[in-house]
Amino acid sequence: MPLPVILDVDTGVDDACALLLAALHPGLDLRAVTCVGGNAPLPEVVRNTLTVLEVCDHANVPVAAGAAHPLLERPVDARHVHGDDGMADLGWTAPTTTADPRHAVDLLRQTIDAGDAGGEPVTLVPLAPMTNVALLARMYPESFASLGRIVFMGGGARVSNATAAAEFNVFHDPEATAVVLDACADHGVEVAMYGLDVFYEPRVTLAQCDELAALDERGPAALAAGLMRFMSHRFDTDSATIGDAGAVAMLVDPEAVRTERLPVRVELSGTWTRGRTIVDTRDWSGDMEHDPHGLAPAQVDVALEIDGPRIARLWLDTVRGAH
Amino acid sequence: MPLPVILDVDTGVDDACALLLAALHPGLDLRAVTCVGGNAPLPEVVRNTLTVLEVCDHANVPVAAGAAHPLLERPVDARHVHGDDGMADLGWTAPTTTADPRHAVDLLRQTIDAGDAGGEPVTLVPLAPMTNVALLARMYPESFASLGRIVFMGGGARVSNATAAAEFNVFHDPEATAVVLDACADHGVEVAMYGLDVFYEPRVTLAQCDELAALDERGPAALAAGLMRFMSHRFDTDSATIGDAGAVAMLVDPEAVRTERLPVRVELSGTWTRGRTIVDTRDWSGDMEHDPHGLAPAQVDVALEIDGPRIARLWLDTVRGAH
Amino acid sequence: MPLPVILDVDTGVDDACALLLAALHPGLDLRAVTCVGGNAPLPEVVRNTLTVLEVCDHANVPVAAGAAHPLLERPVDARHVHGDDGMADLGWTAPTTTADPRHAVDLLRQTIDAGDAGGEPVTLVPLAPMTNVALLARMYPESFASLGRIVFMGGGARVSNATAAAEFNVFHDPEATAVVLDACADHGVEVAMYGLDVFYEPRVTLAQCDELAALDERGPAALAAGLMRFMSHRFDTDSATIGDAGAVAMLVDPEAVRTERLPVRVELSGTWTRGRTIVDTRDWSGDMEHDPHGLAPAQVDVALEIDGPRIARLWLDTVRGAH
Amino acid sequence: MPLPVILDVDTGVDDACALLLAALHPGLDLRAVTCVGGNAPLPEVVRNTLTVLEVCDHANVPVAAGAAHPLLERPVDARHVHGDDGMADLGWTAPTTTADPRHAVDLLRQTIDAGDAGGEPVTLVPLAPMTNVALLARMYPESFASLGRIVFMGGGARVSNATAAAEFNVFHDPEATAVVLDACADHGVEVAMYGLDVFYEPRVTLAQCDELAALDERGPAALAAGLMRFMSHRFDTDSATIGDAGAVAMLVDPEAVRTERLPVRVELSGTWTRGRTIVDTRDWSGDMEHDPHGLAPAQVDVALEIDGPRIARLWLDTVRGAH
Repeated sequence: MPLPVILDVDTGVDDACALLLAALHPGLDLRAVTCVGGNAPLPEVVRNTLTVLEVCDHANVPVAAGAAHPLLERPVDARHVHGDDGMADLGWTAPTTTADPRHAVDLLRQTIDAGDAGGEPVTLVPLAPMTNVALLARMYPESFASLGRIVFMGGGARVSNATAAAEFNVFHDPEATAVVLDACADHGVEVAMYGLDVFYEPRVTLAQCDELAALDERGPAALAAGLMRFMSHRFDTDSATIGDAGAVAMLVDPEAVRTERLPVRVELSGTWTRGRTIVDTRDWSGDMEHDPHGLAPAQVDVALEIDGPRIARLWLDTVRGAH
Repeated sequence: MPLPVILDVDTGVDDACALLLAALHPGLDLRAVTCVGGNAPLPEVVRNTLTVLEVCDHANVPVAAGAAHPLLERPVDARHVHGDDGMADLGWTAPTTTADPRHAVDLLRQTIDAGDAGGEPVTLVPLAPMTNVALLARMYPESFASLGRIVFMGGGARVSNATAAAEFNVFHDPEATAVVLDACADHGVEVAMYGLDVFYEPRVTLAQCDELAALDERGPAALAAGLMRFMSHRFDTDSATIGDAGAVAMLVDPEAVRTERLPVRVELSGTWTRGRTIVDTRDWSGDMEHDPHGLAPAQVDVALEIDGPRIARLWLDTVRGAH
Repeated sequence: MPLPVILDVDTGVDDACALLLAALHPGLDLRAVTCVGGNAPLPEVVRNTLTVLEVCDHANVPVAAGAAHPLLERPVDARHVHGDDGMADLGWTAPTTTADPRHAVDLLRQTIDAGDAGGEPVTLVPLAPMTNVALLARMYPESFASLGRIVFMGGGARVSNATAAAEFNVFHDPEATAVVLDACADHGVEVAMYGLDVFYEPRVTLAQCDELAALDERGPAALAAGLMRFMSHRFDTDSATIGDAGAVAMLVDPEAVRTERLPVRVELSGTWTRGRTIVDTRDWSGDMEHDPHGLAPAQVDVALEIDGPRIARLWLDTVRGAH
Repeated sequence: MPLPVILDVDTGVDDACALLLAALHPGLDLRAVTCVGGNAPLPEVVRNTLTVLEVCDHANVPVAAGAAHPLLERPVDARHVHGDDGMADLGWTAPTTTADPRHAVDLLRQTIDAGDAGGEPVTLVPLAPMTNVALLARMYPESFASLGRIVFMGGGARVSNATAAAEFNVFHDPEATAVVLDACADHGVEVAMYGLDVFYEPRVTLAQCDELAALDERGPAALAAGLMRFMSHRFDTDSATIGDAGAVAMLVDPEAVRTERLPVRVELSGTWTRGRTIVDTRDWSGDMEHDPHGLAPAQVDVALEIDGPRIARLWLDTVRGAH
């Protein structure tokens, strides 16, 4: 039985990659997609998301707009990376579908509750600043508590990008990430962190893009090829990461990612470290009496190593319809 | 025409005083009441709120439950001050009415939107940790933006109570207050702060309580007397403050409170100052070029002085039906 | 027997006022003066200090240069307030004496140790960022511990000037103030804080300046008049505060200042409050079990009220030689 | 010509390893050793340091006691790691020599000034919390500025031990490290950071300890063997790191350590990150306009990779007198 999932996205090139995988992989049942401001402003995020689902022939999946503004931070998008339209400036035609009228938080709640009622706890996959998810946790704690699991892209044990210490998604709404991790601990919701330590490794080459591009005209493969070529060009390399799609891949091929259950906290107040995820990777061999500064207890399944090529292959196979 | 208002409360002895005034004063049209965890846990807050409205013969005003948990802080109530039931342990009979099924944030939104549509922008009066209001601001910024005004009890320029630096309401959800002040600035919503600098001054004596208690059996006057006697007893004095009710009084008798429009910020990260409202009361005579640390621009109408006896009289008169 | 004192200064107009009082009052035995960067850069501070002592006929008091740079902050002077030369730009002739070759910290240590050995514990009066005193505390804790008392100008319970939350001296080296308060607590050194709550109240009028100016040509009275006129002019008022001199006055007329022993902490990490002194002025009537956020224990004698005219008169009388 | 060096230590098992190398390697001229509280309280540190130098026949090198207390933190030693006497509890006889009467800061200043005067700028090697070095920087900036270079053990780009985010030496006096890095930048003193990313790699096996132990009775080799055996035993492994000695080894065999000049900051105010060294290891290919959060400019030569066996061999050879 396919796993019921909701994606929370700020589409975004690599969110698009993740949407392709979540919509097309037979092991996943994409129940809803919620949108949040992040890589691009909210209206662009909604439009890009609708476009991808339409391309995948999944226009029936409800897409709702959520928070345009992080809890405390100012919205700062990353269009200098993702393109003016937030999704590689491919000139794709506008989607014919429109967003669900509900607020993203209401769509989350109702989709989670329906899954829960049907005995199918939903897995939530946030791939963006976690504003929507934090709002859900504080508005509807019971719905949050009945989530099957959260697998989010964000943070990192050792690698950062937005600042010298912090990753983009967490940096752009650190309080939201802190709220979500707290709520997971309070409600016993399992949570996995797919962060920068593994994020860049599943990569698609320009040669593979060429193969994809030959498969269809305006379908998933052509879109995937366009996205990857854009990013290769952007960073002047001959390959590009599928990014957020790796977090989705963890759901269908967990063995391709080595995780460790570790204590994780979000730094909110540092001068140089605001938005950093602090992951306690130390091996103290039971010497906790001399470690008053430990971040007990372990709580998050942190992705520390990945079989990048295997994940990339999974994605390519799915996009080109091999599954 | 009476001013349309919504109260956001954590009833609470002095929230009860404020509800009495808001329900009974002819200058105010109490459209809705939203509840949040604070002085007492959320279920007690809802019950206490329903009780007060029923006592006032305002059981038709919708009352909705909101957030039980602050954005980031742990919930910590103040029942050691307000009594085990959060409202003076008066043994009042349970209310016969029940809460509105909507979430507080939805009730806020719909009440604000209805007022706005009817040409009557609603004034929102938060008298508790501002979790609900912050959720509104980030969920429904358009509704937030169409508020007529916010008058909140919280903070202080010079006086604090929860810590050496911070006032209870702000301390218990500092991020929420910061979100609300930011959103007011972003959306041009006027905001007034009725804080600890004036909070304790409108007081009712035990002798006045006796007069009130003689007016009715289980009506507003008896309730008011019970609340004030409880607080007098609690602090071992012969009078008690009407507290939050002063913020409501500002709406109908603005001349009893001297405010100044000043820059205000909420400290979120200090070791000793988390939750403090920083109010820039300095007079720099235009020397801003040497004041790189100023909190420009002025944004909040801060209550700095009050005619306490006048406000107390207004409240007493309203409660005993003189209006 | 006169009280042995050391002043630590960043002369500075009101440091000059304090030096005049400390040098000329018969109740005080000025043993040494140490200089630190603050109102003006260190070389100007040393020169101004030598000038004042020479004018007072106290050129034999050793004056030593100390830290030019705060522990962590960048040096930022206040010459826009104190004049280009840091001391009112009076065009006074350069001093003929020179600074003691010792470092300020060594002069502090040796003067304190000598006082201690002679049975006369020295009172240290810091009137500037406390860099020198903090260095003393960490370099020579035994000497620090044998201080009789510290009476410093800095901070405030309710009033601030450098920022909306902080006073100049503390703001310009917050870590130093924190070190000194910690060391006082560790070593049982009594400490009094003469802060902005009282600082501005002892004032001298322009009329009084005229009287002073008539008393001598290039003596203490003329200098005092020049300093006060400069400040009156600077702030466009008809009077000026003697500022730091009030802290010295506390030593000879303690009854003119009401102090309370209160807990005090220095905020080091706040976004808006860095450098604020947190003074716990709350009256909790023994309810500490519900005050987990109290700053116990009380440790600093904080000046909360002052008889400003009496202190101003004391200063005027001393400067014009009436003592 | 051997390089003139000063070690600042909190001896400490691995400080002892470093002292052995600095005293015995022909490429180094150990001019002075200054002591600070850290791994053990200051008196034990001084005694252990004198012991090591006496064992090495370097009892003529002046050893001075410095700060017993960090700038702001409370002193917390690591005797649970280093033994009750701070140096492996080997039962070595007490040293016959005594400490230099000067304060460590004075010994630093005079040794640096003498080197500078003689055309031999001194390299300072802090292997402990940097309290002494920070005091030097603020007391005697000219002496600090004439240092040839600073090579310190502390911090880490990716690895931590005292907390989930911070390394022991920096964590135990974060302000001191910040002062030293600031002063290096201000005065153009080159600074290298030998941190936890490489610290654990140069290791000595128990078999090598046996070889060492056979070389002398109460000499350097026996001491070295005792230290390493103690640590192997402590961590229940068959080898031990030479720790701080690696930083000394960098001076004589720089090619065994790959460093990169990177921006480094010390986090002072974080909730979870206080004391962390933030090292900007990102490769932004000139995209600084989109990196407003960069820690420009690059300033510290951070040790990122090491030839551990080569460094261990260098140490073993030196200790057994092969040089």
